[in-house]
Amino acid sequence: MNLPKSVTVVEVGPRDGFQMEKTFIPTNTKIEVINALIRTGMKRIEVTSFISPKAIPQMQDASEVVAGIDRPQGVFVEALVPNPKGAENAAQAGVDGMRVFVSASESHNRKNVNRTIEESLVGFREVVRIGEEAGIPVGGDIAVSFGCPFEGNIPLDRLGLIVNRMLDLGIKSITLGDTTGMATPPIVRETCEFLLKSHPQLDLGLHFHNTRGIGLVNVYEALGLGIGTFESSIAGLGGCPFAPGATGNVCTEDMVYLFHELGIHTGIDLKELVMVARKVEEVIGRPLPGQVMKAGQRLDLHPCVL
Amino acid sequence: MNLPKSVTVVEVGPRDGFQMEKTFIPTNTKIEVINALIRTGMKRIEVTSFISPKAIPQMQDASEVVAGIDRPQGVFVEALVPNPKGAENAAQAGVDGMRVFVSASESHNRKNVNRTIEESLVGFREVVRIGEEAGIPVGGDIAVSFGCPFEGNIPLDRLGLIVNRMLDLGIKSITLGDTTGMATPPIVRETCEFLLKSHPQLDLGLHFHNTRGIGLVNVYEALGLGIGTFESSIAGLGGCPFAPGATGNVCTEDMVYLFHELGIHTGIDLKELVMVARKVEEVIGRPLPGQVMKAGQRLDLHPCVL
Repeated sequence: MNLPKSVTVVEVGPRDGFQMEKTFIPTNTKIEVINALIRTGMKRIEVTSFISPKAIPQMQDASEVVAGIDRPQGVFVEALVPNPKGAENAAQAGVDGMRVFVSASESHNRKNVNRTIEESLVGFREVVRIGEEAGIPVGGDIAVSFGCPFEGNIPLDRLGLIVNRMLDLGIKSITLGDTTGMATPPIVRETCEFLLKSHPQLDLGLHFHNTRGIGLVNVYEALGLGIGTFESSIAGLGGCPFAPGATGNVCTEDMVYLFHELGIHTGIDLKELVMVARKVEEVIGRPLPGQVMKAGQRLDLHPCVL
Repeated sequence: MNLPKSVTVVEVGPRDGFQMEKTFIPTNTKIEVINALIRTGMKRIEVTSFISPKAIPQMQDASEVVAGIDRPQGVFVEALVPNPKGAENAAQAGVDGMRVFVSASESHNRKNVNRTIEESLVGFREVVRIGEEAGIPVGGDIAVSFGCPFEGNIPLDRLGLIVNRMLDLGIKSITLGDTTGMATPPIVRETCEFLLKSHPQLDLGLHFHNTRGIGLVNVYEALGLGIGTFESSIAGLGGCPFAPGATGNVCTEDMVYLFHELGIHTGIDLKELVMVARKVEEVIGRPLPGQVMKAGQRLDLHPCVL
């Protein structure tokens, strides 16, 4: 396999993870975790969502969070923006990038934001305009790209159309989300090859879930296709783990462990990253899915003999 | 990638899993689980260990377990035998196959069975003789084949020597164990290519752990090398998960899910297998690592919207 020499890891835990917690994570704690992540060498972080506090009270402190981040040069701080109001707030808070989102299926988009896909796409225009005015690039996430729990498989043509429309709007960085963990290596290959063939200029990222245990297998498959941008969540936080012991988002430190063992450069200090993961588990107060933070790295002494 | 069209899944949960439980699993329950596994279409099962009840009291009912199994034609019932005494008991109980074991590192073999590797290998001779007399084939497992927690990397030459010695003794089916989850795709590739090149007649199986989250990535890598025998444990039971939320053995139903999504035939009814995994979780009384038993198969409705 021809693997990339280096990849970009996009940490989404502070948004995707903290957003799903029932209790409100104190603003200071959020900032501490984000700053600790940046100190590991992480270069791209989705730190919050500029969404109505009525919709998601956990993200009510979006501006304060952004204001509290230590931002060394080269670090790219992103936030999710669901609408023009959010985009204005994000621009004012001084993020480096904004991200809009839409689902690849009508049913999922309806359930998620109560709009048709077309309505979501039309709404992106004003966000992009606000971004352009503020000099902030807008990226886009497409949820349920590898399968929808309500509609099943996603027709590639439809995914292609959504990508086309986003590119036409000037949205160049597009991430395919595997929202409920329906991606498999053959579907990853088929989908990415289709999109990269028809849109060679596409800056494609992938966001896998480990819902059915094969999140990192999908990452490995995508590496073999030359894809070099992967979203993940520290300690495996978030991504809708809906049962005790269930997983959601692919875990950042486990993914970075895989990258390093494959000889792929991330710029991240894995030892430091594992310490951040353990800190996050402490903050959350229950065991989180990450494995490397429990077992240590490959040559660390594992206490098992048998 | 050139994947095999079909693979053999070797279930080890009834031995490797139940052996590690603190409470004794009732003999009837063990038999029920094994029979349920066989009804899913599973063709090879390591059902128990003929070891001294003083050493491992959980396996004291080895003969009763074997006696209680419904054995349709084509099902291969295996047991671990640590010594000639165990081999005699296993032969008397009427197993289809026996398995001996040794570690790839001196330190691990010493800690595990208090012998040198050489002493273990010499001991296999009598087991093989008992097997031959009874017409029962003897296979062998090599623990810590992809790295030892005490010694680090395993020199390929040493692994090759152990394999040579086992083949010389007539042990044809050899499984490499990743006892503490130190395997990575490059190490899997290097190790398997080395052994298959120098021993083309070798019937090679692999037993991965998910200790560092990449167990199924290693399975996927091995598939690409044409390897077609994989050990795993129902619900992810056993394999020394030493912290809350930690994993040990690769989980059978998650691995079978991956195989089926790759279009690889296993002969196993995954829907039935998931039901057995849930039953095992119920028996054990705590959440086990398996993910597919929590989320369902790919097109099952996942309750998450966001």
